[in-house]
Amino acid sequence: MIYVIGIGPGSKDMMTVEAIEAMKNSDVIVGYKTYINLVTEFIKDKEVVQNGMRQEIDRCKQAVEIAKQGKNVAVISSGDAGIYGMAGLILELTTQEEDIKVKVVPGVTASIGAAAILGAPIMHDFCHISLSDLLTPWEVIEKRLRLAAEADFVICLYNPRSKGRSEHLNKAFKIMSEFKDGKTPVGIVKDVGREKEEKFVCTFETMDFERVDMTTMVIIGNKSTFIHGDLMITPRGYNI
Amino acid sequence: MIYVIGIGPGSKDMMTVEAIEAMKNSDVIVGYKTYINLVTEFIKDKEVVQNGMRQEIDRCKQAVEIAKQGKNVAVISSGDAGIYGMAGLILELTTQEEDIKVKVVPGVTASIGAAAILGAPIMHDFCHISLSDLLTPWEVIEKRLRLAAEADFVICLYNPRSKGRSEHLNKAFKIMSEFKDGKTPVGIVKDVGREKEEKFVCTFETMDFERVDMTTMVIIGNKSTFIHGDLMITPRGYNI
Repeated sequence: MIYVIGIGPGSKDMMTVEAIEAMKNSDVIVGYKTYINLVTEFIKDKEVVQNGMRQEIDRCKQAVEIAKQGKNVAVISSGDAGIYGMAGLILELTTQEEDIKVKVVPGVTASIGAAAILGAPIMHDFCHISLSDLLTPWEVIEKRLRLAAEADFVICLYNPRSKGRSEHLNKAFKIMSEFKDGKTPVGIVKDVGREKEEKFVCTFETMDFERVDMTTMVIIGNKSTFIHGDLMITPRGYNI
Repeated sequence: MIYVIGIGPGSKDMMTVEAIEAMKNSDVIVGYKTYINLVTEFIKDKEVVQNGMRQEIDRCKQAVEIAKQGKNVAVISSGDAGIYGMAGLILELTTQEEDIKVKVVPGVTASIGAAAILGAPIMHDFCHISLSDLLTPWEVIEKRLRLAAEADFVICLYNPRSKGRSEHLNKAFKIMSEFKDGKTPVGIVKDVGREKEEKFVCTFETMDFERVDMTTMVIIGNKSTFIHGDLMITPRGYNI
């Protein structure tokens, strides 16, 4: 049995009951070391297989091998395992393994965690776009940014900026500026649910790209989104 | 204090630790009666204020009045309170109430719950579109459907079909068909996490609209999505 578990953005508070139970029911925990460190209290006495960034395929293959031995394995992802997480890889690797049962355990993804901290920015139609071009051609990302902005979606950017891709966020804003007004509210949350959590709100034209890194969620409002104090709110449309 | 709580799609499994704690810490629970019924085990001995559908504004105003009396109030939404839920209304109603503290408690939204049941359909960029035109002009919905399909997003449809709006889903598929191939996988989950939960996968051209109602989540794949058995998988792009 393989549980593919979304542990939420970081704190125990945002984990689901099932995520905690599934970790407790597992013999072996497999994950990226940063995420393993977030769940230590639930995995005492468990065998742990951890490795570094960009080793997702190895990690998932190891989990499948362990499951073949009849053990219960928990593969953990931050946020939700089905959103840019490990659920897809595990299912792709087990399509021919009929003896291995896989259960995806849902979690709170980063956009939802960040939205709760910012107020209510994703109350209306929204989309997720990852700015990482490691697995997706940059032209596809550009096209999605342009069309999402034209559609007036609230836009949540995952993997917005890393050392190796410091210009992606800047480029993304240039593309969206064709349709997103300079006064459009933007909400930024770093390290959602973790000790160093930090948030700030600004507008599309006053955005400071330097404050964004890989563990930051960037949420760009739609035409109705407004800022009140340090809150970012996208009305659903009620006439109050 | 007002907690605006997302209780997840329905089962206790998919509730977060914080959602359960916040209900326990509240004096009064306010919500739509169907959702109140899903959390009875956590709200024994609590005062409950429940009412029917489409009475969201009344419900939220009542919660604000109760909070003014110094009580802790939990306003509950299914899924996540910040996604087509009550978080926006409560924050809009309290912008002038500086004495009332509001905390949004995030939850697992229906698309994430449905995705875990279907396999891994939202592993890549996706969007949420509500087909309800009660609060949003239908032209805006049409525009978003067309642009989202052109952008090759995985598309999650909320409020896909009700008795009063039985043709919306059909119309939505017609609009998306300009860009979504007939063989595109579609996943449908009814009553996620509840007793009557039911799922099926089909393709864009074999979609049976009659099987969809208001408590159904419809997820339309992107160009890479595939069906394996009863699983729906959207690859992230790893070369395995």
